[in-house]
Amino acid sequence: MESTKTLEPAVPVRRPYKLVSREFHPEDSVVKVGSVVFGGPQVVVMAGPCAVESREQVMASGEFMQQLGVPVMRGGAYKPRTSPYSFQGMGVDGLKLLAEARERFGVMIVTEAVDHGSLHHVAEYADIIQIGARNMQNFELLKAVGQTGKPVLLKRGLSATIDEWLMAAEYIAAHGNLNIILCERGIRTYETKTRNTLDISAIPVVKQLSHLPVVIDPSHAAGTWQWVAPLARAAVAAGADGLIIEAHPNPAEALSDGPQSLNFPHLEELVGSLRKVADAVGRQL
Amino acid sequence: MESTKTLEPAVPVRRPYKLVSREFHPEDSVVKVGSVVFGGPQVVVMAGPCAVESREQVMASGEFMQQLGVPVMRGGAYKPRTSPYSFQGMGVDGLKLLAEARERFGVMIVTEAVDHGSLHHVAEYADIIQIGARNMQNFELLKAVGQTGKPVLLKRGLSATIDEWLMAAEYIAAHGNLNIILCERGIRTYETKTRNTLDISAIPVVKQLSHLPVVIDPSHAAGTWQWVAPLARAAVAAGADGLIIEAHPNPAEALSDGPQSLNFPHLEELVGSLRKVADAVGRQL
Amino acid sequence: MESTKTLEPAVPVRRPYKLVSREFHPEDSVVKVGSVVFGGPQVVVMAGPCAVESREQVMASGEFMQQLGVPVMRGGAYKPRTSPYSFQGMGVDGLKLLAEARERFGVMIVTEAVDHGSLHHVAEYADIIQIGARNMQNFELLKAVGQTGKPVLLKRGLSATIDEWLMAAEYIAAHGNLNIILCERGIRTYETKTRNTLDISAIPVVKQLSHLPVVIDPSHAAGTWQWVAPLARAAVAAGADGLIIEAHPNPAEALSDGPQSLNFPHLEELVGSLRKVADAVGRQL
Amino acid sequence: MESTKTLEPAVPVRRPYKLVSREFHPEDSVVKVGSVVFGGPQVVVMAGPCAVESREQVMASGEFMQQLGVPVMRGGAYKPRTSPYSFQGMGVDGLKLLAEARERFGVMIVTEAVDHGSLHHVAEYADIIQIGARNMQNFELLKAVGQTGKPVLLKRGLSATIDEWLMAAEYIAAHGNLNIILCERGIRTYETKTRNTLDISAIPVVKQLSHLPVVIDPSHAAGTWQWVAPLARAAVAAGADGLIIEAHPNPAEALSDGPQSLNFPHLEELVGSLRKVADAVGRQL
Repeated sequence: MESTKTLEPAVPVRRPYKLVSREFHPEDSVVKVGSVVFGGPQVVVMAGPCAVESREQVMASGEFMQQLGVPVMRGGAYKPRTSPYSFQGMGVDGLKLLAEARERFGVMIVTEAVDHGSLHHVAEYADIIQIGARNMQNFELLKAVGQTGKPVLLKRGLSATIDEWLMAAEYIAAHGNLNIILCERGIRTYETKTRNTLDISAIPVVKQLSHLPVVIDPSHAAGTWQWVAPLARAAVAAGADGLIIEAHPNPAEALSDGPQSLNFPHLEELVGSLRKVADAVGRQL
Repeated sequence: MESTKTLEPAVPVRRPYKLVSREFHPEDSVVKVGSVVFGGPQVVVMAGPCAVESREQVMASGEFMQQLGVPVMRGGAYKPRTSPYSFQGMGVDGLKLLAEARERFGVMIVTEAVDHGSLHHVAEYADIIQIGARNMQNFELLKAVGQTGKPVLLKRGLSATIDEWLMAAEYIAAHGNLNIILCERGIRTYETKTRNTLDISAIPVVKQLSHLPVVIDPSHAAGTWQWVAPLARAAVAAGADGLIIEAHPNPAEALSDGPQSLNFPHLEELVGSLRKVADAVGRQL
Repeated sequence: MESTKTLEPAVPVRRPYKLVSREFHPEDSVVKVGSVVFGGPQVVVMAGPCAVESREQVMASGEFMQQLGVPVMRGGAYKPRTSPYSFQGMGVDGLKLLAEARERFGVMIVTEAVDHGSLHHVAEYADIIQIGARNMQNFELLKAVGQTGKPVLLKRGLSATIDEWLMAAEYIAAHGNLNIILCERGIRTYETKTRNTLDISAIPVVKQLSHLPVVIDPSHAAGTWQWVAPLARAAVAAGADGLIIEAHPNPAEALSDGPQSLNFPHLEELVGSLRKVADAVGRQL
Repeated sequence: MESTKTLEPAVPVRRPYKLVSREFHPEDSVVKVGSVVFGGPQVVVMAGPCAVESREQVMASGEFMQQLGVPVMRGGAYKPRTSPYSFQGMGVDGLKLLAEARERFGVMIVTEAVDHGSLHHVAEYADIIQIGARNMQNFELLKAVGQTGKPVLLKRGLSATIDEWLMAAEYIAAHGNLNIILCERGIRTYETKTRNTLDISAIPVVKQLSHLPVVIDPSHAAGTWQWVAPLARAAVAAGADGLIIEAHPNPAEALSDGPQSLNFPHLEELVGSLRKVADAVGRQL
């Protein structure tokens, strides 16, 4: 088992996590995805549809992201859905569409893996492997994604503490992969107006405890597209290293998460405002 | 995909779940495991160590359960642990020890599967396949366990709503398996005195919404062995169909969950008191 | 200020609370209200309407409680309501009706005080002064109720930790009143099926930390009358010293909390079943 | 009772609150405190110590706020404390010190009232009456503060929903006072790294539902001074109308909330950075 290597006495344990801790690596770490760098001066915007639905939808999205200067496109080919009767994603066919969009529009691709089978394919086609909130403590999947060595976007679980989230990252790190980008996407609380409660404090707390880059998903936190823009601006002001935003060429017809998806004009408007906020806190976007 | 069958218009959908709903099946359903019946007049006690640690430990546990009349023994061979550096379980070797205990002491075995690989082995050796709280929305695992057709103990996720829990059961049912036992094990709240907050209300709520049997895990809820007995008695009084209790021949030396494990004399005392409470509410144990 | 007396060095502080702690007073304390004793072998049932609405309603309730052997009647004359446009209670007129019912039917009265003004009247007419969940950290009210010396039913706040709840009791104790009965009534969590989540674990936890009697309000926890009975039975099985249950001669016409109120036949049925559970755990009712 | 006036049929009720709802008053409302305007283009900074401790401390704070251009000073003379043995505030003597600082340094004063008695004094000496989180559903206090007609800073309760918070504001409005400033200060969740979880989403949600100004208290949310600055910047970026920040001339010696208080150099640095963020979102500060 690979993790035994990390148990050597040369690595003193003061917190439950060590490879991902600030103590182990005092400098900010950066994760490079092609020419995109997470954890440096740039605030990286990732955007795109919740789910891959069709060639038209993916190509329209890829083209718009290129025009807007959004360097990474999101889109789910494997969808973990609460109901077994909901659309479960296009699978490998969806991945191929994403890869085609990368080819044509020069955008990097982030997409989710949900088990060993899908991970095999996602690792082949994507630039960043997303581990979703529901799988944050799917430890067997974490071990496997650790072995790929590829950049990983690790979402915080719905009710994971910050310590548990960093321990999940430690699983990936302990299996050989430190290319980890942490993603806060809202936690479950008693408040029901928003889909989840964005824990904006997670940004400075994680930055103090860990050297890993942190990005924010304002879309799943808000659950309503009108609230995505102020949350995105808040994230940049609080020091986030990036954003992952749901946007769709036609939100009203989206197969999933339509109500929280921005249309393209609203995304464009948001990106413009984010540039000003990034500038105000000494970053660029 | 098997789930498509359930989409036929012959099954009207009034709630998000249907196969597991009380409307679909107005009578209580029962799940039979050998001669043990969940969901009938008997309150089924399951007990045993958190993790399988050694032949001595497993055989001592099996012998004691037999003497005490506890019909099902628990014990984890695959352990989902928050830290990659914690004991991860004995794997197949552990399953073989459990099967040996069943052979010698006539106890049924419930043990956890954590991914497709472990599920293959657990389905071979165990009588009841446990899906843990952290995997309650590991939908690929739910689909796979649905296809086994074997009895499943489905734990509620740490912050799963009752609707989400029943939807997780629906995944199993939609893939062909209605031998589902629901297990409430405490939910995550702001209170920190207990490890989790036992949602005792889940018993009557689930009984109203679903026909499936419901059992309670007081050990993970309490996190402290002194509080396990009152919670177990409360569960029986509230109408639980069973209990799953952590007990260890020597809690002080347990490799996991020692502080919440009963020793055998305390388990014996508890079972005696549970018999009286079961009798008071018209059940037997 | 009276509390300064308790700061004398003769009382060593090991926990944040001391007068209410088990360490300060290792034996269970009892609170006597006429011939009713909280904290002894008896499980004390308190029942009655949420709000005092009319003479007919109060007398019908008092008569039924007498017949059923319920020794304490509840009924709110001052109602803290979420909306300023909801019925706010009958005030002193309501208190007089409660006192009349006590006179005629021999039931003790528990009713809520919401500020200094209402406290003055409640202390005059009632046998037990209730401090509601929303006022658990209304420290000025706690100080004042401490000075009355009368029995107090202190409800746990909607999101109060057990430590904060015991500290609220300490406020009352530090101002001269140790006649405190703690009341768990459900806490706020993410689950929305029930109005609140009954923290049944609070019973053994508080019993370990404090010497004060603990009672359960299953009605506000459940929010739905069908779930009140199983929660009440669970409370008795877990060791509660009493129950406070909403019951109304005609729940469909109640001015507040109708959906969670039992009608009288259901209350009678419940009390019968509670007697059996109390007997099973060595108590009487 | 004044609230009956608002029950007239001329005011149609579509939400549980009406006077404070956006539907009732589509334009943003502004609350004027001397020359300070909440709800207009300016982001209003309020800062100062948690508690009034001495003349030196209050005058040093007032002088610094004047120099820094912070128009409102905070400071508690009545302190609701979890423990009866903690410092409970200087009372009227503290209010007089605050009024003296206003006189000398031209800063407006915001300070908390905890019951009818303290409200009488606070209304006399302060410019803005604060209602604390623990009293958000102390309805008798809300009614009384409604009758004063003075500007009110209404903090959200520890576990209040946004609807309950707006209903609390409705109590004040229904008793004749629409000079209400809402203050989000963090809610109680399962996460323990921060003292509370700042619900940054509350800003856009409340702005949609209500016309009232919203300010943020990053200090009580964070609980640790190092995290106050990023939260404050996030609040301004998300559209907050103001901030209330704990700052102390010597946090290490503060009688309460020292760990979350900024020292003056850090406050100065923060205010500088907030100006840039305010400018980026089209506001001034």
